[in-house]
Order: sequence, then structure tokens, then C-alpha cells
Amino acid sequence: MTAPKTSWIASANDGQTHFSLQNLPYGIFSAGNGSPRVGVAIGDQIADLAALDDAGLLPAAARGAFAAPSLNRFIALGQPVWAATRAALGALLAEDGRGLQDDQALRDRALVPMSAATLHLPVEIPGYTDFYSSREHATNVGSMFRDPENALLPNWLEIPIGYNGRASSVVVSGTDLHRPNGQIKLPDQARPLFGPCRKLDYELEMGFIVGKPSALGEPVDTGAAGAHMFGMVILNDWSARDIQQWEYVPLGPFNSKSFGTSISPWVVTMEALEPFRRDNPVQSPDPLPYLQQQGRNAYDIALEVAVQPEGASATTVCRTNFKAMYWTMAQQLAHHTVSGCNVRIGDLMGSGTISGTTADSCGSLLETTRNGAQPVELAGGARRGFLEDGDTVTMTGWCQGDGYRVGFGAVTGKILPARR
Amino acid sequence: MTAPKTSWIASANDGQTHFSLQNLPYGIFSAGNGSPRVGVAIGDQIADLAALDDAGLLPAAARGAFAAPSLNRFIALGQPVWAATRAALGALLAEDGRGLQDDQALRDRALVPMSAATLHLPVEIPGYTDFYSSREHATNVGSMFRDPENALLPNWLEIPIGYNGRASSVVVSGTDLHRPNGQIKLPDQARPLFGPCRKLDYELEMGFIVGKPSALGEPVDTGAAGAHMFGMVILNDWSARDIQQWEYVPLGPFNSKSFGTSISPWVVTMEALEPFRRDNPVQSPDPLPYLQQQGRNAYDIALEVAVQPEGASATTVCRTNFKAMYWTMAQQLAHHTVSGCNVRIGDLMGSGTISGTTADSCGSLLETTRNGAQPVELAGGARRGFLEDGDTVTMTGWCQGDGYRVGFGAVTGKILPARR
Repeated sequence: MTAPKTSWIASANDGQTHFSLQNLPYGIFSAGNGSPRVGVAIGDQIADLAALDDAGLLPAAARGAFAAPSLNRFIALGQPVWAATRAALGALLAEDGRGLQDDQALRDRALVPMSAATLHLPVEIPGYTDFYSSREHATNVGSMFRDPENALLPNWLEIPIGYNGRASSVVVSGTDLHRPNGQIKLPDQARPLFGPCRKLDYELEMGFIVGKPSALGEPVDTGAAGAHMFGMVILNDWSARDIQQWEYVPLGPFNSKSFGTSISPWVVTMEALEPFRRDNPVQSPDPLPYLQQQGRNAYDIALEVAVQPEGASATTVCRTNFKAMYWTMAQQLAHHTVSGCNVRIGDLMGSGTISGTTADSCGSLLETTRNGAQPVELAGGARRGFLEDGDTVTMTGWCQGDGYRVGFGAVTGKILPARR
Repeated sequence: MTAPKTSWIASANDGQTHFSLQNLPYGIFSAGNGSPRVGVAIGDQIADLAALDDAGLLPAAARGAFAAPSLNRFIALGQPVWAATRAALGALLAEDGRGLQDDQALRDRALVPMSAATLHLPVEIPGYTDFYSSREHATNVGSMFRDPENALLPNWLEIPIGYNGRASSVVVSGTDLHRPNGQIKLPDQARPLFGPCRKLDYELEMGFIVGKPSALGEPVDTGAAGAHMFGMVILNDWSARDIQQWEYVPLGPFNSKSFGTSISPWVVTMEALEPFRRDNPVQSPDPLPYLQQQGRNAYDIALEVAVQPEGASATTVCRTNFKAMYWTMAQQLAHHTVSGCNVRIGDLMGSGTISGTTADSCGSLLETTRNGAQPVELAGGARRGFLEDGDTVTMTGWCQGDGYRVGFGAVTGKILPARR
């Protein structure tokens, strides 16, 4: 093991922080009276890229892209500019970096303690697509919503199944959400009732952000797919299970998902994730030719979910890993566009719930508790079949390097009571 | 019958034009070297609103909103500004109108023959939702895709069923589309094949454009829904039936719809449609309270679909009317937002396929031809179970007033061969 490269910002070097020098994720922050702008997380600090740009320390090709309320303008500059900016930031923030470290006035302007900043939705999202790519999750849900004997539908092993989500209600971590009202059909009633969801759930997902658009009518093949990805976030696809079960046939989930989808504020770039590529999952049967892929498109990302009742402490209820997903992001994008559908900069592509084979590795309470039948025990004696008002859900994830982490921080959200 | 109010632009007064003085629909056009901007259709002319604004002839509150590549900026100004602008245009273009009629230099700048203009997508669409609100359509499709004995699913009479469509591939009339490739599962094969869609179809729909946003967590009730609507377009929800049938379980249509959705270029305002309100459809059972509505939320809009093979003449294959829809737009919007889902300016809400009870009133070939089994006869002897390469589909619709029409023009699109 070689010691990892370190930063002159000491908090980036403790081996535990998600925001090591190896990471350098992008987000949108504001502090004091400043307007939202692009920042990069480093240890417990945020580097203000608009300030660094003003000081002439970032690539000329990125000039003016950071004084913006979303990453879209920067992303639109393209991969060579992403790489040059990352390289410039890496040099500035490295132990021996000059230009910022040695300019106290600029440090005062351009470094903001994370604790003093407000984080905003990092990307303007023109389209949100949600896939369904964990075999274990699809099997678990199929066995509860449909037929345990035929839990995995016949198309699942052929198609990286996905559907269009609702982009308007994608929110940044920390946004509290009201428990949704909706139609619920109880088995012993002839007609549905209308009222607050009784089976409120989370779904642990990763999402990737499209960094390069594709044209209508021009598919992106699996080999080219990587070049269309800018970075990744953790995604909580909040789900109202009782509303979902009644509404989803035949056109899919709608109100059961559209009341809110939360993402983590820091977009970890594909370049930072490069060391954590792993072998593709074994797929049987062999996918159709347009879904076949070269290279290593799985990523080793440790993931956890914790539930915290109001006034109590948090309990980790799920530990799993993104590398176990059956369909890769390259396959998802190839499938999405094979019809000719175009993608746009900032499009968010959710992975689908990430579940393992055991109750404590499932990415939703639906699975962990078998539709509420086997409640999970929380610290302090509380039990949960589904979420209660006041519960806070926190998802976190990181890639473990040798002595450092490339992490995603967290996506949190609290459930407020239903509106009357 | 009173004679309708007429315009000094004679082509607006022939009783047949869709673009009478009573209509004044908004669109985005360009001509010559000019950049795309807001125009209003009047007879065979387009009034350039950026030019009229420059001349000080439009309300001060709308100042600067028309030199824009989409209607969104104007729409965001709100209903009082829509009404004032419409009133100003009505006065300018009426028989006795002054300010434009009597200023030849301004007429030369501000009136563009429609034949010399290019029409663009009128609205930047942050979200596209597609409903499924024709009882006849849902019954017809259910009987072919699922079980003829239980064609209408149990939730259909309770929920204005809808799903999230793909906004990126919404295109303006006149955009040709490649036949999509995708996975097709033939009944006698163990695995799907990949190739060009063999059952390419259109779907005749209307769509409304959201004119006033709603906040996350704050439902819009049926009584308030009208105030959130700016106007309407005709929508062709192109559909690959064979891809759809294989992919749609359990999350709904995806690649079968996402290769393109076409809308008509002129947005007819709700204000222009006001005289064509009709009584709400009879609904049984009574909807749940949150879906109950007052007033008259149906609209009398005659609709037609024509299919034209390459080099042949067009044949009208469907005549129907929007007033027969079971769920109204007010109910759709109330349902969409009841979970707390927010809507945004420019959101497009498709009605779902508009079908009557007879083959010649069905809004899709799937229904008209009973999944291809009973091909429709076209002029010149051609027959169509589904669309062939080179076919052009044209949908048109209008409200019939006393001596005038408030029409939508047309939405057309031609099918190009699949890409290899």
C-alpha cells in the first residue's frame, strides 16, 4: 500500500472523510448573502469555484461556468473541460499546491466551512428515468405484489426495465416531505378510500447524471455510454406502497412515487470513481447483442440506510453494495436510447432499488419487513414495518480506497405528517 | 345567429380557417434570418408579437416576453397578462382595429405569411404526463393486451390513470421520425428478437399546457385546476405496439413511446376555448370527493386523423370528438397533484387516446384494425394494419362556432425507415 496523496486541508486526509483529495465532487452551495454557485467538497470545506475562477486558477475553457445555480453550464462544456478542471483542482488542493494555499485573502474568500453552507439541488434535471436493475429487488417485489412462484417477470432478464419518473419533484437532501395522500384499496372494501399513505417506504438507489446529450433517433451503444455520464449521486426513491399497488396497473407507478425523490448534494464524477470499477455481473442468458458490453461497468460502492425516529437515535437497517446490480449503467443507457430516444445534459438515471439477498441488505422496508409483516427493530425499542411521521431516513455510500474514501456524503429526508 | 366579429385580415374570416379572430393561438416561429420568437396565427398570416411589442402595441406588463424561443416567459407572466394581451391583439386585428392596420411599414415587419415561416416547438416542456382518460380506448386496449372479459381494469373507474412520459422527445409537427428498433417477443419464440417495430401506431390525443405552477406538497383541487391551464394542443403519442406489449409490465410503457411524441405548433388558449365548454361526462360510480367537480369541464373539439402513404393521397381514418372523454382535465390535474407532486410552467399533460365506440372513431390503428386483423382501406387501394415506412399521419381538430372556427391546425409526422 502506497500512502494516498494528501491535501493541505487536513480534514481531507483522515481516511474517513468522504471528501478526500481523490474525490472532488461538485455541488451547488450558498453561504451568507452569496448566490448559489458551484463548489467542490474537500474535507469539511467547500472550495468556491466561482471565486477560484475569478482568481484565474481554473482552466480558461471553464471561465464563467461556476457562477451558476446548477452544474449544467459546466457539464455542457464537455469531458476535456471536466478533466482539466479536476486536474487543476487536484493540483491546487494537493499538499504542495500553490495559488490558493499561500494566498490567505483568497482562502478567506474561496473556502467555506461546509457547516456554514446551504446545499442546493446540484443539477437542473430535464428528465428523470428510474430503472429496476437489481435482480434481488425485482424478485422480492414480484413475490409480494404478484406471484411468489413467478416473481421475476419474463422480460426482466432480457430488458433493463425502466420507466419515466417525475423530474419536477426531485429534491436535494434535507428537504422534508409530507406523507402523501392518495387512493388506497383495502382488500375487504369494494371501493378505494382516500387518505394518508399507510405504507410509506424508501428505496435505496444510485443515480447517474447525463453529461453529454444524444440526438433524437441516434442510439448510444454500450461502448459509448460511459462518455455520456458525468457523475453519480445517491437517490432515495420514496414510495407509497399502498398507493402504488392500486394504481400501477397498467401504466406503472405515478402518484406513489411523484411526491418526492431525494438526491445527495454532491455529484461524484465518473473520473473519481474510475479506480472502483469492478467486473460486470454474470448475466444469463447472454443479453441481446445491443446490450452486450466490454470492460468493467460495475462499481464497488458500499451503501447504508439508517432510520431515525423523532427524538431517538438512528439505526442502520441496510448494508449493501452497488456492485451487485444485474444490469449496468452502460446497458441502461444503451437500452434507453435504442428506440431513438434522446437524452439531455442533467438527465438523472436512477438504478432501481439496490438489494442483496438478506433482510439486512435490502434497499426498501417493503423487502426488509416483508410488506410490514416482520418489522425491523430500531435502537430504543421502536419497531417499523413502514415509516412513521417524524422518521428521518439517511442513506450514505462510499468507495473504499487504500487509506482514503471517495464518498457521496448522505441523502436525508424527514417525513412530515400528511396534509389535511 | 349573429355574424361573428371579423378581422381586417380577410383570410381570417372565411368561416373555415382554424385561425379566426376568435382564436388567436400562440406559437414560436422564425422567418428569413430572424430568430425564433412568439407569433399569433391569424388567417394565413402570423403576427410577430416581438415586433408589435417593440411598437408599443401590446400591454406594458408583457414587455420583452415575446423575443424568446419559447412561450414560457410569456406564460410565466400569469393569467391577467394573458387576458390583456389577448384583448390587445383582438382589438388590433379586428375590422376596425387601428395601430397595425393603418401602419404599412409596421405591417410589413409584423405580419409574416404562414407559408414563409418555420414553426418550432412552442413550449419548453419540463415534464410530460400522459393520461388514459377515454373509457372506450382503455376498454379496447385492455381487451387486446389483456383479457376481453375484464377489459377495463378495476382501478380505471376510480383513478384518472396516467404515467410519466418522456419530455425530451416531444417534437413539433413536421418532425419526421425513424421507425424505432426494440425488443419484440413473438409468441412462438422462447426469447425476444431485436429489430424494427412491426406494429407502429399513432395515438390521437389532446394535451394541455400548464400555465401556473404548483408547489411541492400543495395539491391543486378540481375547482382551481382551470387557473393552472394556459392552453391546448393536439398530440400524437406515437406507439410501437409490439415493443410495448413486451416491455410494459410492471412499470409501464417506455421505449415503445419514447422515440417521439408530436404536438401541433399553435397553442390555443383556454380563453379561446371557453365558448366550447360542455357538460361533464356522466361518471359512475361517483368519483371520490377529491375528484368531484363543478362547472363544465368537457370541451367540444372535433378531431380527425388521416393517413397518407408516400406518393398517394390522404385518407381520413378517424373522426371523433374530445367531449366524450370520461375524465376531465380538471380531474387529471387534481389527481396528478393530490400526492403533493408539483407542476411547472410548460408541463404538457396528454389526454390519452381519444376513441369513440366505432372503428372509424378510434384514435389508434391498434383499435381501428383490431391489432392489425382488420386492415383499414386507404384511397388508391392501399391497406394498413399498422403504419408503413413513408406514411404521413396528420391529425387535426377544431371547435365549430357560429360562422367561425377555433382550430388547432394540424400535427403531422412522417415515418422514416428504421436505422440500421
